[in-house]
Amino acid sequence: MAATFIADSKRLLRDLDALREIGRVSTGVVRPAFSEADIDARAWLVHRMEEAGLEVSVDALGNVFGLPPGNAPALLVGSHSDTQPEGGWLDGAYGVIAGLELARASLEQGGPPIACVSFQDEEGRFGNLIGSRYWTGALSLEEADLGCDDDGLSLAQARVSRDRLPAPRAVSPERFHGFLELHIEQGGLLDLAGEQIGVVGAIVGIRTERMRFTGEQNHAGTTLMHLRRDAFQGLVTLATRLNERLAEEATPATVWTIGRVDLQPNANSVVPGRADFTLQWRDGEEARLDQMRDIIYATAEEVAAEKKLTWERFGCDSLPPTLSDPGLVAALSQAAGELAPGKWRVMTSGALHDAANLSERMPMAMLFVPSIAGISHSFAEDTARADLELGLHVAAEAICRYCRTQG
Amino acid sequence: MAATFIADSKRLLRDLDALREIGRVSTGVVRPAFSEADIDARAWLVHRMEEAGLEVSVDALGNVFGLPPGNAPALLVGSHSDTQPEGGWLDGAYGVIAGLELARASLEQGGPPIACVSFQDEEGRFGNLIGSRYWTGALSLEEADLGCDDDGLSLAQARVSRDRLPAPRAVSPERFHGFLELHIEQGGLLDLAGEQIGVVGAIVGIRTERMRFTGEQNHAGTTLMHLRRDAFQGLVTLATRLNERLAEEATPATVWTIGRVDLQPNANSVVPGRADFTLQWRDGEEARLDQMRDIIYATAEEVAAEKKLTWERFGCDSLPPTLSDPGLVAALSQAAGELAPGKWRVMTSGALHDAANLSERMPMAMLFVPSIAGISHSFAEDTARADLELGLHVAAEAICRYCRTQG
Repeated sequence: MAATFIADSKRLLRDLDALREIGRVSTGVVRPAFSEADIDARAWLVHRMEEAGLEVSVDALGNVFGLPPGNAPALLVGSHSDTQPEGGWLDGAYGVIAGLELARASLEQGGPPIACVSFQDEEGRFGNLIGSRYWTGALSLEEADLGCDDDGLSLAQARVSRDRLPAPRAVSPERFHGFLELHIEQGGLLDLAGEQIGVVGAIVGIRTERMRFTGEQNHAGTTLMHLRRDAFQGLVTLATRLNERLAEEATPATVWTIGRVDLQPNANSVVPGRADFTLQWRDGEEARLDQMRDIIYATAEEVAAEKKLTWERFGCDSLPPTLSDPGLVAALSQAAGELAPGKWRVMTSGALHDAANLSERMPMAMLFVPSIAGISHSFAEDTARADLELGLHVAAEAICRYCRTQG
Repeated sequence: MAATFIADSKRLLRDLDALREIGRVSTGVVRPAFSEADIDARAWLVHRMEEAGLEVSVDALGNVFGLPPGNAPALLVGSHSDTQPEGGWLDGAYGVIAGLELARASLEQGGPPIACVSFQDEEGRFGNLIGSRYWTGALSLEEADLGCDDDGLSLAQARVSRDRLPAPRAVSPERFHGFLELHIEQGGLLDLAGEQIGVVGAIVGIRTERMRFTGEQNHAGTTLMHLRRDAFQGLVTLATRLNERLAEEATPATVWTIGRVDLQPNANSVVPGRADFTLQWRDGEEARLDQMRDIIYATAEEVAAEKKLTWERFGCDSLPPTLSDPGLVAALSQAAGELAPGKWRVMTSGALHDAANLSERMPMAMLFVPSIAGISHSFAEDTARADLELGLHVAAEAICRYCRTQG
């Protein structure tokens, strides 16, 4: 029960290199959910899991599980093998192959029971993190089927390609006592600090709100500056003040973004009468998200009053922060402290991951390795091979420690 | 030669009310160039001119001239009778009917020779001020014909509707010794000051430039604030600094506008990698336009350097300021001082007008009446009837004074 095992990081790299060839384009990978390359990759995974002696189950949505023989509670380790339309070779793939290697090595060496998984459509071709939401029961198959990609293809139609995989067999989340996801950081924090391991203490909560300033559309020649009610200038002032005011409340991981702006009528010679925009803010703590919301609302009200605009908001899309399991975080921290002394930190994930969905059903944690220059969702995404290997060893050591406490 | 005349301002109002019915929608008018309503209005004008004893010439583009009998050099007075897609009842129409009344009254009473005109497509359905540019020789018919409206209809196609008007006959600009355009102000300066008459000393020059900040498109969750190269934030900083720096150089009539903004990829969860925008600035003096340009370029460079963005500009569309004729301005000022003491000013027109094109061929000036609340290009546009009447009388008095100096 309390046995240990050593993962084979060279085998990890070989499998990662093999998976990279499926859907490879230049230095990156094009393997969106349910594309031919995605199903090829899942079929290849099924084969590798079977070779490792794992029992394979592929559910109706195409989530691929490799289970250790027997019915003992297992730790689930994995991520996703689908990619962005222009994806990097490690985003998701690293966690999937790390899961495969950890399950395989532990099975070979009599270590603790470890299962592995590749979730489907984490990258959102048909919806947000559909595979893990379906598996954890947050989304029914019927609901998932309604999702469409940018070309209008529905998931129900796309799912036909899943027929090349083994017949659907459900896997109960009850079988697992925890979930670990290894992933590239996707940001530049570790790389910039020269560190090798990030232990994820929390996954950010995300608030996204669409807002509007309405002023008076007017002639850009005859409307004197002091008589204007320019909706875009309202947004400029709001953005400027938020940069000051939110910074006072922010942790280094707190972020806010005005990513979308649509002006009316958006013409060279017309003072903008309307500015629609989205404000998105992320933080690991719900209380700080609330505090930021209060600052944003108050500042928008203030700017509207000063500039004689009206300000509206159209409901906030809200995803709460997810806390990692303290026991798993402790085990990962101890392992990182041992194998990467002075080169690791506990950090917040600024991106969403399947792990956030799994936290509804079981203790969860994540381990990050650095992204070179913080680049992801790009063919240029990469991580030093030594960091990929170290991440695997830290995970193996942490799992052994954690499973001893579960024994 | 030096005879005087009195214009009939009640007849002016009756003709304005009649013209308003052609294409009327609610309190406004929909009479875009070459629409059925526009040609109806021009046919009505032809009829009114003939009734007044004026000789009518309609040129190939549909510019309608009413000429006093004989070949003596005349003063041309007019504007345009086409409207914006949602236009007010006075924008252009006031100057056209004022021209009709001045030519008519002067002819009736043996005053100086006055001709009147309604130019075609001042509002830019097929191009910028096409009618007056064609007539003054700045644009050939072949060039004008290439212009298309927003639905892709070419001027060549639309011009077929002109066949309902008298057969084309050219009118030489050589025949006229000056041009006067009466127009609503379109801004709120006169209304706000409680004044009734604006004598236009200059028509603004306009610089319009499309610019771009390019940063790094990135994940709005994992990209920490201090590592971002957010193209939209570059625009926010530029806009803020220009509001301070340009204000230091500005006259009350100087304006600048960011009317158009297009972000890439314009998505909630992505740090904008590119911000395309237009900056337009207007002033009555070329030297100040240059000075503003220098400030804009320097500030954009500075912001780009600070925020690690690149800044590009794609050539400046430039229209020089136009100065009114000092003799006409003097005559208008004397007349305004007499008929509207303490309630007039010399001012700069922030909008372009046909008069700017005519200044290439003859002495030109403009007279403004107030726009209530500064509203134009809207069904809500309006001017007090007393101001419409006063404007006409000031013009008549000024014309008599001016023509005496020409005699």
